[in-house]
Amino acid sequence: MSRVAIVGVGHSKFGKRSDASLRELAFESYSEALDDAEIEPSTIDASIVCSATHYDKQRSPAGVVAEYLGLNPKPTFNVEAACASSAVGLRTAFSLVRSGLHDLVVVVGVQKMTELASKEIQELMGRAGDVMWESPFGTTMPAYYAMYATAHMARYGTTEEDLAAVTVKNRKYGAKNPKAMFQKPVSAEEVLKSRPVSTPLKLFDCCANADGAACLLVTNAEKAKKITDKPVWVAGLGLASSPMALAGRHGAMTSFEVTKNAAKSAYEMARVKPGDIDVAEVHDSFSITEILNYEDLGFARPGKGSKLLKDGETELGGKIPVNIDGGLISKGHPVGATGASQITSLVQQLRKEAGDLQVDGARVGLAQNIGGIGMYAAVSILRA
Amino acid sequence: MSRVAIVGVGHSKFGKRSDASLRELAFESYSEALDDAEIEPSTIDASIVCSATHYDKQRSPAGVVAEYLGLNPKPTFNVEAACASSAVGLRTAFSLVRSGLHDLVVVVGVQKMTELASKEIQELMGRAGDVMWESPFGTTMPAYYAMYATAHMARYGTTEEDLAAVTVKNRKYGAKNPKAMFQKPVSAEEVLKSRPVSTPLKLFDCCANADGAACLLVTNAEKAKKITDKPVWVAGLGLASSPMALAGRHGAMTSFEVTKNAAKSAYEMARVKPGDIDVAEVHDSFSITEILNYEDLGFARPGKGSKLLKDGETELGGKIPVNIDGGLISKGHPVGATGASQITSLVQQLRKEAGDLQVDGARVGLAQNIGGIGMYAAVSILRA
Repeated sequence: MSRVAIVGVGHSKFGKRSDASLRELAFESYSEALDDAEIEPSTIDASIVCSATHYDKQRSPAGVVAEYLGLNPKPTFNVEAACASSAVGLRTAFSLVRSGLHDLVVVVGVQKMTELASKEIQELMGRAGDVMWESPFGTTMPAYYAMYATAHMARYGTTEEDLAAVTVKNRKYGAKNPKAMFQKPVSAEEVLKSRPVSTPLKLFDCCANADGAACLLVTNAEKAKKITDKPVWVAGLGLASSPMALAGRHGAMTSFEVTKNAAKSAYEMARVKPGDIDVAEVHDSFSITEILNYEDLGFARPGKGSKLLKDGETELGGKIPVNIDGGLISKGHPVGATGASQITSLVQQLRKEAGDLQVDGARVGLAQNIGGIGMYAAVSILRA
Repeated sequence: MSRVAIVGVGHSKFGKRSDASLRELAFESYSEALDDAEIEPSTIDASIVCSATHYDKQRSPAGVVAEYLGLNPKPTFNVEAACASSAVGLRTAFSLVRSGLHDLVVVVGVQKMTELASKEIQELMGRAGDVMWESPFGTTMPAYYAMYATAHMARYGTTEEDLAAVTVKNRKYGAKNPKAMFQKPVSAEEVLKSRPVSTPLKLFDCCANADGAACLLVTNAEKAKKITDKPVWVAGLGLASSPMALAGRHGAMTSFEVTKNAAKSAYEMARVKPGDIDVAEVHDSFSITEILNYEDLGFARPGKGSKLLKDGETELGGKIPVNIDGGLISKGHPVGATGASQITSLVQQLRKEAGDLQVDGARVGLAQNIGGIGMYAAVSILRA
């Protein structure tokens, strides 16, 4: 069967975008992707819109997005897996292309969150946890991840300073990413002194709710070679699930089994090992999440995530640079757009177009998302 | 590439299901599908949950559904296209199987609607229209379809009696479907005297909001032949889109271009013509919708839909029996479940297991959904 490639990417400015509606954000990323691939919209066969719902009034957003992008009467539909939505969008596009149903599919991850008050968003976020057994008891996302942080600290001696170091690294790189919401470095002291959100997580340990969109053009090998001399190949796609309710999970809350399972599938499909990954974008919804992901993806042994960071291995020039675009902590986290945003950054890395943030010799890249509180995880491995 | 088959189907009782939560409804259909296929859950590789959101508090329902069905850690995600959600779920499962990503995928369409007051549902339904340009002006679903009815009446002389005849036919058959919400025939007089909802549509011209689930087991040819001696093959899958806002559409409101486009793709893929279809399940969200669908699917010429019905051609024994399971008008319309419900009925017909409702000699079946007010349409063609 044909290989599948990404031949164009686009990315809106992330942040509080009072200037743009959901459809306009989608268009901002889409038009950039079209320019990137230098193709006409008429060559696109279908669109997939990835958006976690309830953050704005529009239901079934593929309808308005496909219309606004000028993609009627072509097929369109919505794919959603919480924070992993557009990573799953890529996987769905891959299968549509590889099955021969379509030749060229556009994936648009988009979210408009900032029209809601922050506490309304927190309540909605919580409802991406189990609404029968957990969210009524106040398990918002910071609270969920704070439990994981506490467990990791208790078991492995991870400290608040270790968590702060994630933010310091990511904000340092984010300062150079013009699409990021926050383009200002922060010091460890600033992180540690920021206001508590859910102990031990403080404001600067948390990514921000944001508006934004990111777009991927996905096609088969034949078309890819016609469109670009720099196709980025989709080599591995892992997706796994876990009980939504924490109460249904086994073992200590010091790792996400769901990430390990998704990673295993992706590594097997791509026939690579963690040590083969040159550059990674991992889900840093909170600082603790990045440390857990180092371990769950096999970049560090259990409990050694913070050490990997302290040793500089996840910095530019390290063994496995992570979140060199600034991560969710700098870019903000427009839920449906985040997966495609990470993949956009990887594509730029693998094409050697990342400018000041370029990872030398990057040939294999990995992107990972946790959906919600870990009921989903998606891992995508790309090759130059 | 491998052919793809449906090897098991399940269907919950539809209706006001105060006895069952979203996850329990999903399980009701899933366990029936497992029994139908006589397979172990361990042979399933992935699940797709199809549910239109906002009708209950749970966000990202694939998480709780996959957990409750015991399908962790296998991949799961949500696919949504309003009323066409689980038809698109089938198409997505088809591509996952045919691309080789998975061998056996379960599609669960599920919706829990009746916890909300009817007027809240109407408001949410309207928000599956364009929330910037239309729904704020009161365009709920009955109002949208009433405009189409009025246009069809004005152009072709279709009457309120013609509309009532759809309900009379569907309720007659629905009376024999134990899974239907309404199992009582109604007379034309009862339909015509029922209270106005949005003129010319009256209460009995409208399908009812409901709770329910339907489930499909989708696999490749090799596995299908091991599982069953009655595989039902997925022969054609069409999906199309249209501007969400009516203002963006061209031509008279006497047909849905989106259905014509989806049908064209499905007929081409299956290499059949409308005249080759032995049995059909079409979207009768309102009585007018069924008449429009006769015409848009090519069963009748434009304006001749009512005549097809009057001539008895869409009845059991007619040229093209339609909605012999009672349609949405009898079954109720739990949005995410409806596509899979139609396909379940077709599978039973093509396996000659429809009992009193069996269409003699049914070998090719067609199911069709309109999503929302026509921003999506899906057409699935199955073969015995």
